[in-house]
Amino acid sequence: MIIAIKPGAPAAEVEAFSALLEKQGVRVNLSQGASQTVLGLVGDTSAIDAEALLAHHLVEKVIRVQEPYKRANRMFHPDDTWIDISGPDGAVRHLGGPYLGIMAGPCSVESRDQIVQVAQAVKKAGAGFLRGGAFKPRTSPYSFQGLGPAGLDLLLEAKKEAGIPVVTELMDIHHLELFGDVDIIQVGARNMQNFTLLKELGRSAKPILLKRGYACTITELLMAAEYILAGGNSRVILCERGIRSFDPYTRNILDLSAVPALKRQSHLPVIVDPSHATGLAWMVPAMAKAAVAAGADGLIIEVHNNPEAALCDGEQSITPGAFAALMGALRRLADIEGKTI
Amino acid sequence: MIIAIKPGAPAAEVEAFSALLEKQGVRVNLSQGASQTVLGLVGDTSAIDAEALLAHHLVEKVIRVQEPYKRANRMFHPDDTWIDISGPDGAVRHLGGPYLGIMAGPCSVESRDQIVQVAQAVKKAGAGFLRGGAFKPRTSPYSFQGLGPAGLDLLLEAKKEAGIPVVTELMDIHHLELFGDVDIIQVGARNMQNFTLLKELGRSAKPILLKRGYACTITELLMAAEYILAGGNSRVILCERGIRSFDPYTRNILDLSAVPALKRQSHLPVIVDPSHATGLAWMVPAMAKAAVAAGADGLIIEVHNNPEAALCDGEQSITPGAFAALMGALRRLADIEGKTI
Amino acid sequence: MIIAIKPGAPAAEVEAFSALLEKQGVRVNLSQGASQTVLGLVGDTSAIDAEALLAHHLVEKVIRVQEPYKRANRMFHPDDTWIDISGPDGAVRHLGGPYLGIMAGPCSVESRDQIVQVAQAVKKAGAGFLRGGAFKPRTSPYSFQGLGPAGLDLLLEAKKEAGIPVVTELMDIHHLELFGDVDIIQVGARNMQNFTLLKELGRSAKPILLKRGYACTITELLMAAEYILAGGNSRVILCERGIRSFDPYTRNILDLSAVPALKRQSHLPVIVDPSHATGLAWMVPAMAKAAVAAGADGLIIEVHNNPEAALCDGEQSITPGAFAALMGALRRLADIEGKTI
Amino acid sequence: MIIAIKPGAPAAEVEAFSALLEKQGVRVNLSQGASQTVLGLVGDTSAIDAEALLAHHLVEKVIRVQEPYKRANRMFHPDDTWIDISGPDGAVRHLGGPYLGIMAGPCSVESRDQIVQVAQAVKKAGAGFLRGGAFKPRTSPYSFQGLGPAGLDLLLEAKKEAGIPVVTELMDIHHLELFGDVDIIQVGARNMQNFTLLKELGRSAKPILLKRGYACTITELLMAAEYILAGGNSRVILCERGIRSFDPYTRNILDLSAVPALKRQSHLPVIVDPSHATGLAWMVPAMAKAAVAAGADGLIIEVHNNPEAALCDGEQSITPGAFAALMGALRRLADIEGKTI
Repeated sequence: MIIAIKPGAPAAEVEAFSALLEKQGVRVNLSQGASQTVLGLVGDTSAIDAEALLAHHLVEKVIRVQEPYKRANRMFHPDDTWIDISGPDGAVRHLGGPYLGIMAGPCSVESRDQIVQVAQAVKKAGAGFLRGGAFKPRTSPYSFQGLGPAGLDLLLEAKKEAGIPVVTELMDIHHLELFGDVDIIQVGARNMQNFTLLKELGRSAKPILLKRGYACTITELLMAAEYILAGGNSRVILCERGIRSFDPYTRNILDLSAVPALKRQSHLPVIVDPSHATGLAWMVPAMAKAAVAAGADGLIIEVHNNPEAALCDGEQSITPGAFAALMGALRRLADIEGKTI
Repeated sequence: MIIAIKPGAPAAEVEAFSALLEKQGVRVNLSQGASQTVLGLVGDTSAIDAEALLAHHLVEKVIRVQEPYKRANRMFHPDDTWIDISGPDGAVRHLGGPYLGIMAGPCSVESRDQIVQVAQAVKKAGAGFLRGGAFKPRTSPYSFQGLGPAGLDLLLEAKKEAGIPVVTELMDIHHLELFGDVDIIQVGARNMQNFTLLKELGRSAKPILLKRGYACTITELLMAAEYILAGGNSRVILCERGIRSFDPYTRNILDLSAVPALKRQSHLPVIVDPSHATGLAWMVPAMAKAAVAAGADGLIIEVHNNPEAALCDGEQSITPGAFAALMGALRRLADIEGKTI
Repeated sequence: MIIAIKPGAPAAEVEAFSALLEKQGVRVNLSQGASQTVLGLVGDTSAIDAEALLAHHLVEKVIRVQEPYKRANRMFHPDDTWIDISGPDGAVRHLGGPYLGIMAGPCSVESRDQIVQVAQAVKKAGAGFLRGGAFKPRTSPYSFQGLGPAGLDLLLEAKKEAGIPVVTELMDIHHLELFGDVDIIQVGARNMQNFTLLKELGRSAKPILLKRGYACTITELLMAAEYILAGGNSRVILCERGIRSFDPYTRNILDLSAVPALKRQSHLPVIVDPSHATGLAWMVPAMAKAAVAAGADGLIIEVHNNPEAALCDGEQSITPGAFAALMGALRRLADIEGKTI
Repeated sequence: MIIAIKPGAPAAEVEAFSALLEKQGVRVNLSQGASQTVLGLVGDTSAIDAEALLAHHLVEKVIRVQEPYKRANRMFHPDDTWIDISGPDGAVRHLGGPYLGIMAGPCSVESRDQIVQVAQAVKKAGAGFLRGGAFKPRTSPYSFQGLGPAGLDLLLEAKKEAGIPVVTELMDIHHLELFGDVDIIQVGARNMQNFTLLKELGRSAKPILLKRGYACTITELLMAAEYILAGGNSRVILCERGIRSFDPYTRNILDLSAVPALKRQSHLPVIVDPSHATGLAWMVPAMAKAAVAAGADGLIIEVHNNPEAALCDGEQSITPGAFAALMGALRRLADIEGKTI
């Protein structure tokens, strides 16, 4: 961290300020130029609040040279992290590194038939994981909120029936005990900075799929991951799912530059959700392919056997047939990227 | 709600679709023009998901004529709602209607001396409420997270000592029992769409200060309020605290047009937080005054007796002296707006 | 400007790099800490491209300590600039400093009767300047594009008839000769970074009203002003008129924090356009008042004698009656701010 | 266009309003439901200003069913438009349809050696077009503004020397006569809504590369294209080059969903500029590949033989070697997309 001191600051005050900073566990290099005094902070600056320093009357500007995240930081873990998940069919699926992991399924679990059929269809098409929501974060209290515990039971039946691991969203930490057979716990975009939830999941042994908040920066996503990692849970999967913009054409703007950015900054697997990002079923194949070409480690795609009758987000769900066709193109792209589905 | 049907849709299919819609509890007026068929939905459309309708192959466009919120909607409650809060000093403070309510205090409770001194100073200057955080939502797990339950105790001591009601943030619903003597519970911007928390607070009897998420729309804020109102808690205070933008000059962009917008759409009190919005202490007075001139029902302002040594957000805190000076200008503005501090 | 050098950079390379920088007319202070080398650039760094420096393999981060604008910078011109404009009625109007300048009139000049009537009405209510567009920048080539030169003639007739100076937009530098009797030339938001136009207007003797582009930063607005100032025209008025956001409630978000920001960074007058910012006539009074309370030096407000029949932007125009009522409130606010209308 | 009338509007007023609308050249279907009156406008509504209608006291909401652009609209031109450009080497290059067109070269023309070397290198690697700026739109008046006419001469020398068509930006319509031998004229992002320039280029016979403004919507880009098309120039190439967001990680956010969106809405070729969008050379290959996988018809990439010494935008330029390597990957992706480079 580098602190530019205001011109004309008395030397004694600068020294006192340096001493104060050193009490926070860093070493301070003072360099007094003819017209500019600069303090360089050396050591672990992750606990130092760059914004708070700006309150000090001596401080002109602050730049953070080192990123504020440590466990998520590729600098300290140069090799890719990948996550192995044993399925109910005895096979092991992978997320990260040389693997391209595909998660597919409906927005919401609606019925036994629906979820089992979709599970079998997406597994057959080559998906490694079944997604399906039992607890749904909905903007309106009057919208369908998911089937709740009953939905979770149906999802777990589909897991057994089709022999495929499952990923589903946890909204309330009280429900954690119901998630014993869930393979990957999803933290939704609206909860990305629910620090209470993140801290609890840091104590869990389950892999966590952490979705980027729709107005959160790359750094904030990595700091949210850091909450989980700092708690002792090292199995975090990052997910880009679109950010807010001024253009109403798509529901959000899918920020694919987040993929190379996150891969450069972090060793964690990075997947992409083209369905929630765009909100438009017809756009999902193009953006799914683009995500793989950008270097994503996986995709999470909404697939519904009857999108018109879906209880939520039907407009962004593709059919099992369209999904199977897309998988063909994804295999060719994975090959170019040196990845295995 | 108005649904534009795609050109060339077979009449029988449109009728079947209308019948399906009527099963959701609305009446459908079909108007078949020469080149455009339009369905008008009459009745309570708040449970109908406009986005989901777009998945249907007959649907071209959907417009919502009626807002999706009911209890928060001024259409159904034309008169201003205001909230009365009895202070520990026997006096009653008001938020909403003809009152201008001023909340002031430090970002975080740091020590008994600090919080009691600030409490006395802001009360003396005319603030109606003391703010102070015990549980702090911080981007980094390595930053100061607040004093926790001990901080809450100190805040409640300051409440008694200075004779002023208090407002403080709740992050974890498990802490609710600790909040028995808190006068107003704050839901932070990052938790505005933590629907689990909102539902629980709907069952509470405490007034809730609901801060707008930094990338949430006016409608989404009102839908978040609707979660609390629908649970039976009618005492919700809305708070504009800045939204994300592309310009790094201020931490967020204070959206003061939200004030007249929220006042028009809803009967609930609307206050403004110029401190978090701008992140710049020197800008707080100008924006506080502008908020009152825009019609706000109150302000929440960070005041610290020693901003340079604040454990968080010192750069946006003003001193008790600056706060007292600001109160003078606010009184003149309140007078123009026909409000009483 | 401060340049943080990458760890482990060879000393000889850093020296060569410093020498290269010194050739660009600045002095370089090299400070070699134990783990961090920092270069401090002293002198006029406005011609040095901070982004370009990042291409260099030695450079880790760059911070600009000094702003890249000079003539617009309050640091070099501590006193407020204000602009005097002699009206056709012999009276002098002022923009900036202790004055609150009010510009009002229709979006477009539509007819002689319309513009003369509005001119007389706004002058009577206390406006100092008549606004009215003859050349209109419209998103669609099929929308009304303004009356062109004939519209300008009508505007100038209204100027004479009502005895009030006029402000109108120039879109094409070829039209400059037609603007001889125009008192203030407006550069619209979409042309804020039309550098060709800015350079030409730098050679003009007319005051320039420069509107902020709807996705331009505070710094970019000041750099656009710098283009005009650098050409020798020192009479620039800055105008905040709303920026793009994700919320469709208002057409743009009126960024009132731009007012104290621009006033702090620059000595130039700063006015606000609440009409284009919000696009909603009923919101104009609240935001006009807020702008004055935030410290604005003036307002530009759309007033139309028959908003329902306006050829453009009727939805954001207020009537002469509403404008006169607003002026009453503005006078009281100006008084609080120590300004004279 | 569908207009929802406010509840309780008198029938006579609605009829008068309908008559007024019919005078604007459309037919009005009035459908009076029990509680909602809706007007359906039939015919060419492109000249009707939906926003202006909102000023009318009877109007509740307006939805545009038909897009406001006609010549750019795929609905009226279902087949892809592609553009053929004869090079100085006798070969014809294509943009659009089954072709993937690659433009490459430096941000600015700096010297004869530089531009000729880069031209030869990118042509050898397979680029179809040389890009290079002579007139540069720079945020600061103190930054390098390009070599101007001399730069254009050097670019045209490189065209001849290397035998490759060229694309370069026009900022000032007065320079048009200098552009006689330029193959494609670029309109920069900052000029996308410089309607004066667009109208003039509508009268030109040159292909126009129209870059999306960094805060312009898909619809606004197509309306800007419509200005050129309406003037009689049908050879417009659309270019996505990043939009503004809250995250400073990349200079802009590359909105790749714009590619399928523009391809669906319009028949015009759509290319992508990953260099300006990200501002980061190391990210260019990933985003270039993603653009092709998303369905882009081409790319425009900054290539510089010595990025560290580039006079502008070096941080986003890749070397000729990196470009040649990228071309290999792009050929495999083009193959998957059924396109020919």
